[in-house]
Amino acid sequence: MVPHLVTALNGPIKELEQRILESLPAIERWFRLEWMEHTPPFYSSVDVRNAGFKLVPVDTNLFPGGFNNLNPDLLPLSVQAAMAAIEKICPEAKNLLLIPEKHTRNSFYLQHLQTLVRIFTQAGLNVRLGSLDEAVTEPTALALPDGGSLSVEPLVRKRGRLGLKDFDPCTILLNNDLSAGIPSVLEGLHEQYLLPPLHAGWTVRRKSRHFQAYEEVAKKFAKLLGMDPWLINPLTVGVQGLDFTEGQGLEALKDHVDQVLTKTRRKYKEYGIQEKPFAIVKPDAGTYGMGIMTVRDAKEMEELNRRCKNKMAVIKDGQPVHEVIVQEGVVTHERVNEAVAEPVVCMMDRYVVGGFYRVHADRAADENLNAPGASYVPLAFAQSTQLPRPGEAPGASAPNRFYMYGVIARLGMLAASYELEATDPDAEVYA
Amino acid sequence: MVPHLVTALNGPIKELEQRILESLPAIERWFRLEWMEHTPPFYSSVDVRNAGFKLVPVDTNLFPGGFNNLNPDLLPLSVQAAMAAIEKICPEAKNLLLIPEKHTRNSFYLQHLQTLVRIFTQAGLNVRLGSLDEAVTEPTALALPDGGSLSVEPLVRKRGRLGLKDFDPCTILLNNDLSAGIPSVLEGLHEQYLLPPLHAGWTVRRKSRHFQAYEEVAKKFAKLLGMDPWLINPLTVGVQGLDFTEGQGLEALKDHVDQVLTKTRRKYKEYGIQEKPFAIVKPDAGTYGMGIMTVRDAKEMEELNRRCKNKMAVIKDGQPVHEVIVQEGVVTHERVNEAVAEPVVCMMDRYVVGGFYRVHADRAADENLNAPGASYVPLAFAQSTQLPRPGEAPGASAPNRFYMYGVIARLGMLAASYELEATDPDAEVYA
Repeated sequence: MVPHLVTALNGPIKELEQRILESLPAIERWFRLEWMEHTPPFYSSVDVRNAGFKLVPVDTNLFPGGFNNLNPDLLPLSVQAAMAAIEKICPEAKNLLLIPEKHTRNSFYLQHLQTLVRIFTQAGLNVRLGSLDEAVTEPTALALPDGGSLSVEPLVRKRGRLGLKDFDPCTILLNNDLSAGIPSVLEGLHEQYLLPPLHAGWTVRRKSRHFQAYEEVAKKFAKLLGMDPWLINPLTVGVQGLDFTEGQGLEALKDHVDQVLTKTRRKYKEYGIQEKPFAIVKPDAGTYGMGIMTVRDAKEMEELNRRCKNKMAVIKDGQPVHEVIVQEGVVTHERVNEAVAEPVVCMMDRYVVGGFYRVHADRAADENLNAPGASYVPLAFAQSTQLPRPGEAPGASAPNRFYMYGVIARLGMLAASYELEATDPDAEVYA
Repeated sequence: MVPHLVTALNGPIKELEQRILESLPAIERWFRLEWMEHTPPFYSSVDVRNAGFKLVPVDTNLFPGGFNNLNPDLLPLSVQAAMAAIEKICPEAKNLLLIPEKHTRNSFYLQHLQTLVRIFTQAGLNVRLGSLDEAVTEPTALALPDGGSLSVEPLVRKRGRLGLKDFDPCTILLNNDLSAGIPSVLEGLHEQYLLPPLHAGWTVRRKSRHFQAYEEVAKKFAKLLGMDPWLINPLTVGVQGLDFTEGQGLEALKDHVDQVLTKTRRKYKEYGIQEKPFAIVKPDAGTYGMGIMTVRDAKEMEELNRRCKNKMAVIKDGQPVHEVIVQEGVVTHERVNEAVAEPVVCMMDRYVVGGFYRVHADRAADENLNAPGASYVPLAFAQSTQLPRPGEAPGASAPNRFYMYGVIARLGMLAASYELEATDPDAEVYA
């Protein structure tokens, strides 16, 4: 299935697309050199927004979901990338323990897990699932929509090693973002490979730090291509010391929103962009599209009503929100069957392995789409991010555009790699 | 397009297929461990024959052609594998010099070159073509069937380095099998990566040595799966000191043919196979399907007529044949649209990146298909070798069978890796 796309390409992005296509070998070489210095996350996904005049990553997920939305024809790419990743980390690996989210009854999430199991089995590993949920005290079969089932087993911790009954893995793959904190059962596992590392979880990770790293990456990349980094970088500031329930710090937040809107307005003027700027306020840690607000005018912040405050106050796993980021809003001009859509690019190791559209019929182009009611459309193979056609005019063909999305997503992934290096508690410090 | 397949699966192969599918993670891990000790060829293709009761590689090509026959949907796999290969060999690589066969006017071969250029460009390299043909004294445009063109340039040798005018590559990729000998322009290139190495060319390579290495690989693999290595290994012996024109050594050749036929007959009896054994006589060095003979009875060797002798005497680039191999013949039971077919599996680095069928309407199941009149059918994506479906009955689905073909092809590639190590003139010898 090939989704019907409506993309309002105009002005700078056409130039950007042209430059990216012309510079393909240089870009791929640049990434190759970056990966000599930095370690890519084991797997990731990046939400991309294409405003027509600007193209940015808005979220980099290090515990990606949604692999069930990948086009099945694309799976060999994931298998091959998984083979390359395992070979580098632990070539003698035999067993892989996959630790999913606690609440695994959602049938889409189960299909996602099934896809991961399939990929890693085909890459040459015995894969079994262990649950952080203490209610799981014996192997539990979870029914899959296709009639099959997945078995989730209780974790068995023995001194320095984590496994299952009669299953001693060399590698543990987390698909749980640790929003609820780091469970003690995962601490001190020095004999096994724990991927991603604990500090990639939302207990430690901060979006503000990610976008700081992204700014650095965007500047480097923009220099390579000789362009304004703003075209691929959303202005982002972190705000601390908030208490939405008590109304604490909201004045400072309002000021930051105002600054972001003012700077964006200036940039819009510079490029002759006729749209109205807006800002997004979202928790500095956490995911699941919770606690996200679109602000078109700083004054709106004064009128935050009770419902809005409650929505912002607490997110996934009941975590209170004291830190947020204020980010320049980037509209998405992608449409699938007339509904607002944003591309999600999936990566394994340094490789783009596929993508899909997040589509929301009830949301506007300047709103968060990761919300109840969202649906997902796999990208057809013809739109693989791997194969641009340098001969064709920019914007003329889907493959061209998806190559560009794959480049932007990899910039987000590279930023995550910088970020994880900076926050690694075990990093050696060279004075 | 999905080719219609008729495969006479019966007896041991069904068991073999079953065992291969059940052992998938163990097989992939086994390959992973082998690749820790051995270096895969940069790229390769393996001709596979599926007799129903036996499945073997019959030819391992280290200068593969036919990438134009790969399904375009499969190309991202090649790009990804090329990225992994380059990263290991020379991560800072910028320029790649591709050296094709001398006679590059064949439009299929030009499309093959175009595909290689596309793959390596997308993997992040500036690719240009340099010719060994001394008639090429200036950049020459070769017209492609799609309206584009490829430029072939004269080679420029400067002391230790080979390049083109204003083009200094770090890596040189040979797509010329050196049947005509090693040109001096390629000798002593110690500052650049020359891939595959010179001793992979037919000036040094011998099929007898390859199948010796393959026997070792097949035995190891058969041990892993607990099965008779004969099921995946064609009996092969090398015969030297022949002169077809003078009739020299033909008696010894006849004896070897007789031995191979007798051994095969014994194995057929053991497995209750009702077919008539046959042997294949082919040059120990060389390619292009030249000088290949099917022998059903050793007595036929006595009646070799003039035409036959001439056919055997000289092959590609006028090379005389003094050494041959006698190999147990393996019929192919694959059919595409009722024509006899054999699968060709393409690999880049350690990865299976696709495959196609070689089809010949005028040939029998026990004859060589690599001959004038052969045509090629790309494998559709659904039949990618990467994704077996362990749940399904053996033989029931194309993907299962192709996974198996991918395994056998990789065994052939691994044998080539053993072979190149054994013949490496620069290898360090540990006494």
